[in-house]
Amino acid sequence: MKCEIISVGTELLLGSIVNTNAQYLSLKMAELGIDVYHQLVVGDNFERVKQALEESLKRSDMVITTGGLGPTDDDLTKEAVSAALKLKLVLHKQSMDKLEELFRRINKPMSQCNKKQALVPEGCRVLENNNGTAPGIYVEKNEKIVIMLPGPPSELKPMFEDSIMPILISKSGSIIKSRTVRIVGIGESEVQEQLRDIFDSQTNPTIAPYAKSGEVHLRITAKTEAAAEAEELNEIMLQKVAKVLGDNIYGYDEENLESAVIKLLQHSNITISCAESCTGGLLSQRLTSVPGASKSFMNSIVTYSNEAKMKFLGVEEQTLSSHGAVSSETAYEMAEGIRRVSGTDIGVSITGIAGPDGGSAEKPVGLVYIGISYKDKTEAHKFLFSGNREKIRYYSSTRALDLIRRTLLNK
Amino acid sequence: MKCEIISVGTELLLGSIVNTNAQYLSLKMAELGIDVYHQLVVGDNFERVKQALEESLKRSDMVITTGGLGPTDDDLTKEAVSAALKLKLVLHKQSMDKLEELFRRINKPMSQCNKKQALVPEGCRVLENNNGTAPGIYVEKNEKIVIMLPGPPSELKPMFEDSIMPILISKSGSIIKSRTVRIVGIGESEVQEQLRDIFDSQTNPTIAPYAKSGEVHLRITAKTEAAAEAEELNEIMLQKVAKVLGDNIYGYDEENLESAVIKLLQHSNITISCAESCTGGLLSQRLTSVPGASKSFMNSIVTYSNEAKMKFLGVEEQTLSSHGAVSSETAYEMAEGIRRVSGTDIGVSITGIAGPDGGSAEKPVGLVYIGISYKDKTEAHKFLFSGNREKIRYYSSTRALDLIRRTLLNK
Repeated sequence: MKCEIISVGTELLLGSIVNTNAQYLSLKMAELGIDVYHQLVVGDNFERVKQALEESLKRSDMVITTGGLGPTDDDLTKEAVSAALKLKLVLHKQSMDKLEELFRRINKPMSQCNKKQALVPEGCRVLENNNGTAPGIYVEKNEKIVIMLPGPPSELKPMFEDSIMPILISKSGSIIKSRTVRIVGIGESEVQEQLRDIFDSQTNPTIAPYAKSGEVHLRITAKTEAAAEAEELNEIMLQKVAKVLGDNIYGYDEENLESAVIKLLQHSNITISCAESCTGGLLSQRLTSVPGASKSFMNSIVTYSNEAKMKFLGVEEQTLSSHGAVSSETAYEMAEGIRRVSGTDIGVSITGIAGPDGGSAEKPVGLVYIGISYKDKTEAHKFLFSGNREKIRYYSSTRALDLIRRTLLNK
Repeated sequence: MKCEIISVGTELLLGSIVNTNAQYLSLKMAELGIDVYHQLVVGDNFERVKQALEESLKRSDMVITTGGLGPTDDDLTKEAVSAALKLKLVLHKQSMDKLEELFRRINKPMSQCNKKQALVPEGCRVLENNNGTAPGIYVEKNEKIVIMLPGPPSELKPMFEDSIMPILISKSGSIIKSRTVRIVGIGESEVQEQLRDIFDSQTNPTIAPYAKSGEVHLRITAKTEAAAEAEELNEIMLQKVAKVLGDNIYGYDEENLESAVIKLLQHSNITISCAESCTGGLLSQRLTSVPGASKSFMNSIVTYSNEAKMKFLGVEEQTLSSHGAVSSETAYEMAEGIRRVSGTDIGVSITGIAGPDGGSAEKPVGLVYIGISYKDKTEAHKFLFSGNREKIRYYSSTRALDLIRRTLLNK
């Protein structure tokens, strides 16, 4: 079954609001195994709503409209849809009673335009709105389905869940289930190279990569008749992918990199401290964004100046003067220093040039060293990131989190 | 002039992401006085992208596409648009050079699929992407304009501002100019109360408040035929507003709170250090997000554990045991301590309960103390924020930045 979503609202075309309804409905359609190949947005304009619906019905079996069901003059979705379907608008007594009751309760006179909310296309099913005044509409004609939902998400979502979901589950033969594989340390094209065979032979589940600031997310999506079968197909694919990508995968579905690292630390009762220069506290902030991080994260020192690097971390003056603050030697001493002064199991350090200024031919903007000290070993790793200051800082913290993760996996 | 926006991306149709690009572009078109009557979303499918473009070009003078410019097999916006416009794809040498340079720098081989990013429709204008690898495209044919922008908002927005905005301003007849007044320390309703008279009498420029996570932004928008006239109208309104709101305004237009604080510090040659507990490095990270922050920001210590608060900041054990880590006394000693150990002019501290756990009836989640030590005075301020962990941490850092700002203004 194919469905299109038509969002009606001039405020969407003016950019005053984001179209979260289209996302919500698309997600629901995906879960139901109903294909959505088009989403449209048109303004509160009779002709354009009518034309959009006519076009959509040519391409699909079902159209869901959102918005334009209110009481004002520019709410005309019902009028336009009824015209497109060649259906008359008739008064729906129950809706009218409910409206009259409402206005009695709030002790206000009902205006003429409010009455228009009780008009519905003949032969339709009226969907009760428990969170607003505009009822929704479900109508079938010539084997096509048109569903009209109110615009406010607080009205649309419960109406969809309560009234539409049960109808569609009974209509749709298939169901879609998705899993997300979260990858760090290799890029999108390398993921594709490594999974070339799997990508080339994918049918069901399908598999698609998305680059997400320093990470790659792989979406595995199965479409079957029963939920259990889809989940099993996804699991098989996920195992196949995991076998190829190994430790490059840090988590699945909603788990983020920060939580994955904190979970590993907590699992082994390992404490950590950080010494940050160019990232200015970003690594610490990301680690402590995880609830309960305090069991593993002890403290960190943001040493922006050379003096601070010497005073708080014991970096040698000689190291700074011979090799510079951005060097593998300084990263090394920072990692050892923070571990020593904090008395933690692991010490991590970041020093680099985030830009936009401060770069040179020898040490360009984007050059970052990350040090990690654990057990009897301290290492410093060199990176060259591209992008603006914000990106360089973010990538640096991501790679530091990944280094902590890989160190813990290989311990 | 009429414009349509076609967002390309199966992830939009699956509901995995919200279409914020369509909102952003619609808002910009509204500012430019360009009408948007349709927005469309189609998946990564050659035929459907091509058809959508053909339909849109029939209805409008200009089409902007977003997404589908990446290196992978399912990125085919350029291919589909070129087919619709009957243009050949040719290699763009500069883009190719840039890609090769990038891969040399990160010391990785360039895969075949990356090369496809350097292919562009013949006769087009290539828009440089300073935040990613996929260049944008501007092409005119048969008096129609097609603009292709990359999908990630962090790439799309700067490209639109830098490369597209100037072209479109020159094409559009009337001009819209906006200024933003940035306010911190008072809420949206208080801003509205204080500006009641101005709000009630607004015509051109219009004035609208937006609440932005702990701040309020006031958008002043004038529409005229000439840019200079619009700018003058905005300036007059801005002065009126500034007279009422005074020090609650920290900046204008693109200046963020972090930059405003760093500018004030640099202006007076004042150095700063931070001691953070619940914010875990967020305040330091925000301060150091400003290029050149190193002239004023010396260091910070994230003391998550009680031990760290004593060891690094000299907070008294007695203070922690009698008043707790989240108390005005601890905030006070943390601010004095960080200032002393760092030898800076100002010391700032944050200690609080970010949640979701750790709250009690007496000390609920959201309770935060911020300490500030400057000259012969140290103060601790108490706040109660609502929201989740992320919001409480963010609001805390915002209020700390505002306290630094107000301290410097009143010095």
